[in-house]
Amino acid sequence: MIQKYLFPILLLCLQTIFIILLGLHADYGYAPLDPRNITLPQVTDTAPSRGIVEYYYSMFQDIHVMMFIGFGFLMTFLRKYSFSSVGFNFILCAFVLEWAIIIRGYVYDWNSTTKSFIVDVQSMIVADFVSASVLISMGAVLGKLNPAQLIVMGGIEVVIQTINEWIGSQRFCAFDGGESIFVHVFGAYFGITVAFMLYKEDILGSTKENSSYHSDVFSMIGTIFLFVFWPSFNAGLAFGPNRLRAVVNTYISICASVVSTFICSSILGKGKLDMVHIQNATLAGGVAVGTLSSKIIGLWGAMVIGTLAGVLSVIGFHMLLPLLKRIRLHDTCGVNNLHGMPGILAGISGIVLAFIPSKSLYKEELSYNCLTGMNRSAAVQAGYQTAALILTLAMAISSGAVTGILLRLPIFEKPQLETYFDDELNWHTPEDFTPERNYGINVEQELHA
Amino acid sequence: MIQKYLFPILLLCLQTIFIILLGLHADYGYAPLDPRNITLPQVTDTAPSRGIVEYYYSMFQDIHVMMFIGFGFLMTFLRKYSFSSVGFNFILCAFVLEWAIIIRGYVYDWNSTTKSFIVDVQSMIVADFVSASVLISMGAVLGKLNPAQLIVMGGIEVVIQTINEWIGSQRFCAFDGGESIFVHVFGAYFGITVAFMLYKEDILGSTKENSSYHSDVFSMIGTIFLFVFWPSFNAGLAFGPNRLRAVVNTYISICASVVSTFICSSILGKGKLDMVHIQNATLAGGVAVGTLSSKIIGLWGAMVIGTLAGVLSVIGFHMLLPLLKRIRLHDTCGVNNLHGMPGILAGISGIVLAFIPSKSLYKEELSYNCLTGMNRSAAVQAGYQTAALILTLAMAISSGAVTGILLRLPIFEKPQLETYFDDELNWHTPEDFTPERNYGINVEQELHA
Amino acid sequence: MIQKYLFPILLLCLQTIFIILLGLHADYGYAPLDPRNITLPQVTDTAPSRGIVEYYYSMFQDIHVMMFIGFGFLMTFLRKYSFSSVGFNFILCAFVLEWAIIIRGYVYDWNSTTKSFIVDVQSMIVADFVSASVLISMGAVLGKLNPAQLIVMGGIEVVIQTINEWIGSQRFCAFDGGESIFVHVFGAYFGITVAFMLYKEDILGSTKENSSYHSDVFSMIGTIFLFVFWPSFNAGLAFGPNRLRAVVNTYISICASVVSTFICSSILGKGKLDMVHIQNATLAGGVAVGTLSSKIIGLWGAMVIGTLAGVLSVIGFHMLLPLLKRIRLHDTCGVNNLHGMPGILAGISGIVLAFIPSKSLYKEELSYNCLTGMNRSAAVQAGYQTAALILTLAMAISSGAVTGILLRLPIFEKPQLETYFDDELNWHTPEDFTPERNYGINVEQELHA
Repeated sequence: MIQKYLFPILLLCLQTIFIILLGLHADYGYAPLDPRNITLPQVTDTAPSRGIVEYYYSMFQDIHVMMFIGFGFLMTFLRKYSFSSVGFNFILCAFVLEWAIIIRGYVYDWNSTTKSFIVDVQSMIVADFVSASVLISMGAVLGKLNPAQLIVMGGIEVVIQTINEWIGSQRFCAFDGGESIFVHVFGAYFGITVAFMLYKEDILGSTKENSSYHSDVFSMIGTIFLFVFWPSFNAGLAFGPNRLRAVVNTYISICASVVSTFICSSILGKGKLDMVHIQNATLAGGVAVGTLSSKIIGLWGAMVIGTLAGVLSVIGFHMLLPLLKRIRLHDTCGVNNLHGMPGILAGISGIVLAFIPSKSLYKEELSYNCLTGMNRSAAVQAGYQTAALILTLAMAISSGAVTGILLRLPIFEKPQLETYFDDELNWHTPEDFTPERNYGINVEQELHA
Repeated sequence: MIQKYLFPILLLCLQTIFIILLGLHADYGYAPLDPRNITLPQVTDTAPSRGIVEYYYSMFQDIHVMMFIGFGFLMTFLRKYSFSSVGFNFILCAFVLEWAIIIRGYVYDWNSTTKSFIVDVQSMIVADFVSASVLISMGAVLGKLNPAQLIVMGGIEVVIQTINEWIGSQRFCAFDGGESIFVHVFGAYFGITVAFMLYKEDILGSTKENSSYHSDVFSMIGTIFLFVFWPSFNAGLAFGPNRLRAVVNTYISICASVVSTFICSSILGKGKLDMVHIQNATLAGGVAVGTLSSKIIGLWGAMVIGTLAGVLSVIGFHMLLPLLKRIRLHDTCGVNNLHGMPGILAGISGIVLAFIPSKSLYKEELSYNCLTGMNRSAAVQAGYQTAALILTLAMAISSGAVTGILLRLPIFEKPQLETYFDDELNWHTPEDFTPERNYGINVEQELHA
Repeated sequence: MIQKYLFPILLLCLQTIFIILLGLHADYGYAPLDPRNITLPQVTDTAPSRGIVEYYYSMFQDIHVMMFIGFGFLMTFLRKYSFSSVGFNFILCAFVLEWAIIIRGYVYDWNSTTKSFIVDVQSMIVADFVSASVLISMGAVLGKLNPAQLIVMGGIEVVIQTINEWIGSQRFCAFDGGESIFVHVFGAYFGITVAFMLYKEDILGSTKENSSYHSDVFSMIGTIFLFVFWPSFNAGLAFGPNRLRAVVNTYISICASVVSTFICSSILGKGKLDMVHIQNATLAGGVAVGTLSSKIIGLWGAMVIGTLAGVLSVIGFHMLLPLLKRIRLHDTCGVNNLHGMPGILAGISGIVLAFIPSKSLYKEELSYNCLTGMNRSAAVQAGYQTAALILTLAMAISSGAVTGILLRLPIFEKPQLETYFDDELNWHTPEDFTPERNYGINVEQELHA
């Protein structure tokens, strides 16, 4: 009984808490009024004031499309799980955005004088980044968790992700412009660990873990919107020349991973392409260039990174994915291949580039809060880049493990084999969904017969 | 004969008239040239000059996507009416935009010196708002009107909607930033009244008024794009701090309605979610916060409104919709639940907030044209908010009734039971559409057999 | 053997060359830093500095969506070729963007002092324009070329298109704001000529060259995104009052072509609409107004052009397309009707308007590089407009013919009748794709039986 209504009860309690917290501490974050003498600092070194809508809004909307259309439709590839993919992505992301606005407000924007935190378009972009890491984790467990479990998972992940990113970016002062480490690596390994903890043998016998012709086309809607708007993701909070480089580097890197994905998929398939590769590995260039997106890596450098990421990702899908399934690592969407390994590639390239201050410009991002102050050497910066990557992996895996244990509590319904990857469990489905009934769009044939 | 060609003849005549009117009176509305010393007034209290492209364009494009992709795909949920849903939405919206540019030009932007009205990006945003109200009405009559009837309905509605909004916003000076009253309430009750006037008993016996698995997924494309871009809709014409608040309030309110929709749908379905709720009620928070979107309601206030709107909307779909069908109110898409009741909720919250001038800032929007001048009291403002809501309902229902009577004239073909909700009537359909022929993508099987 | 791996080998070689060229000569193109005193020149006659992200970015993203979602999904209408349509569009466009960035850099932006060319958001918009012409050509050969042939075709077309546009715009100084001549006309007739050269009789016997109900709906996703973002395409590189006019003219012209398309489709279909017209001819107004989009043609003028374009395009699809098939001109997507003839209409209207300098403002675009200097007369300008159109046709047809001959070399696999318009040839397909297997989403029915 409680199991059946756990999802709405949980949401209701959390929604109430969120309203109270926002009522106590959230405030609009608009910049002070100063008519007609403030110009958009589009080519300056100085960050635009908080509260400006115009400077960030169009990129915010692009990123917002990525979260809801991009991730939502990317996961519709399962032929009997499209409602859940796009629907659970919808609720999980909306829920996480509310929660992330609050947590980020307390951790990053708390003003102890006014006893409040501000919310503006930058906050909304950051909340979308946090939600990305939760949606990545959702990819690893897709079809295996019920919505109540997803909410618990997302609720925990938001907190840990925020703390990890705060340490990595504010104390270690590791650079990670496109959030490859703090979002992609974190989200992927958190999700994979949860999937590991909840693994049940019989899943390998499921007949539903595959696609249909049209579900694969739906999935491509997600892929292409993610592809198109990825430059906005990596440049979301950058300004001045960093913004230009983030846009250009991401654009060329993700094009490069499309090309290398088609190369590898065609070779491995002996002339036949595999839709799974095209839907996923094509995007690996956006992940892999993330950490360095605003750095002076040259268009050729971005292209090399993107090309390698595509290769790595296709090989991951083709060879690693089936192997990992045998050791209890059932990763439904293959997030290890799209987000995990390309994210680690990004992290490693960040470590390498830290040794070249003229390219990484890392000193510009150092502050007094950084662990070794503002004058750290290139080697020390490389050390902190390494530390941020390792910390992220450690935090993701440990918190993912705890979350997984929590999600095995008896309060959550145990899924049966026939309910994996099946909308029937959680949705009222149309007549053409179940086999005893009729097919496709021709339901009245039976009715008339 | 005339019935068969009524649709193209009508369109041709109106298109000719539109060209003549634009030729006589329309002019480009660009701001006067003044190189290099005009800054974008992103944080000022002063409205940007008419004719600026940059300040409004990215939000315009978002809203434009909502009209054509959002509404168009939202209505594709009917399994045999997807061509008509997206196709008629396309022609109706394009037609209405032309007409709205003209009518709005005469009513709002007429310059008696130059004998012309200007057209700029703001005009295009406003025309999109007008079209929204027509597309909402289309939702109520979906599957029951032929395209000629839709064009007549849209043609009339544009005029009445514009007059009603002009009285409400320019004379009553009621605030309604996100157009919840003037667009959503008007469009919903206009459409429902038209549906009422054209009601025929036998519709309840239709076997085609339901969805298929993939038509429901198509519909989610519309839902999600509406969700993602709703902040642009509510902030479309706002500037300065109003713009920031409109964006932030809408963002958090519509997330809240997603959460409360899932809560209610899950409870009412005893653990199973209903796709109709997810496709529609999730968006109610965008409607319900519209009137107040740029006001100082606090993020918690926006979240309360969004949460209530989601609850109201799900209950409407679950309980009210079937009841209303019995009293001749057949509302195909349930626009009463998504636009009507949440719009009234928005109107009422506007009345309440009018009593708190420090939050509603209503005095800023008053002008000499307002019926009681620029110094009206809070109670009087609340009165005019009420008047605007009541006027809108009265105008929508009365003009909807007249339109409905008009659409029953013999010049329009009478639909038969078997033509409801069926593309066959108005489209050349592919082989897999009709039951006598083969299924899905496998047409050559039969050909080869 | 080589045939099977030609596609990946070719891509790999080209990708390597691109990386080397970018490494040798590409540089970021950001504007020099000058904090806080540069304003966005939104209403000036002076072009914004190269390297500004903010001025161009939101339009760039719109155009980027048009290329990948718009063209990609528009072509999914074939019931058994959706994977290839969206997938080959993806790889071809990504590949062409890389190549176009390089070629355009050498031809337009080469700085002989620094021995490099800059890359900024304007470069990215221009690369998208180049890719549009390749994707248009792809429409003509859709379903008949293998991916290796597409890559060769795209690789050649980028070079010729760039040279042709350079002569037309920099030497002839013909105006063509929305690239109707240099992109649409060029792409259409290049592609049609390639299709002509590769024509094989048996294609007319294919049973797969038709749509299914849902593939037509997928195609509408492409149509509507192209429609919505077309103003960004035509205004992509315009600034000041030109930008406003380009947006307004395109908006109204493409609405007009939607209306006239529905008029003509309904008349020709005797009351029934044809999906092919709605998917394609509706967009002809965007093409036809392109050349003049930033000119003072009045909203009525834009509407007349759009209306005519819709009529022309529907008639082309209805009458010309089947006729042309008999003379070896098999144009799968009918690009002659959507891009070819409306593009020529645009070119002709450009010639006409050149005689009215007060409307065409052609003198503003003249430079010392123009063939007859900066003081050419209206008649001479009209002559050069004509020359640009004729040169484009000649370049497209001649280079298309050479490309076609090249693509018939034995190194490319010869397609068989049963492989036309069929994903099976190039993709691993899901179970429901082939007729011997089961239908739609109900695969487990057979497994359980």
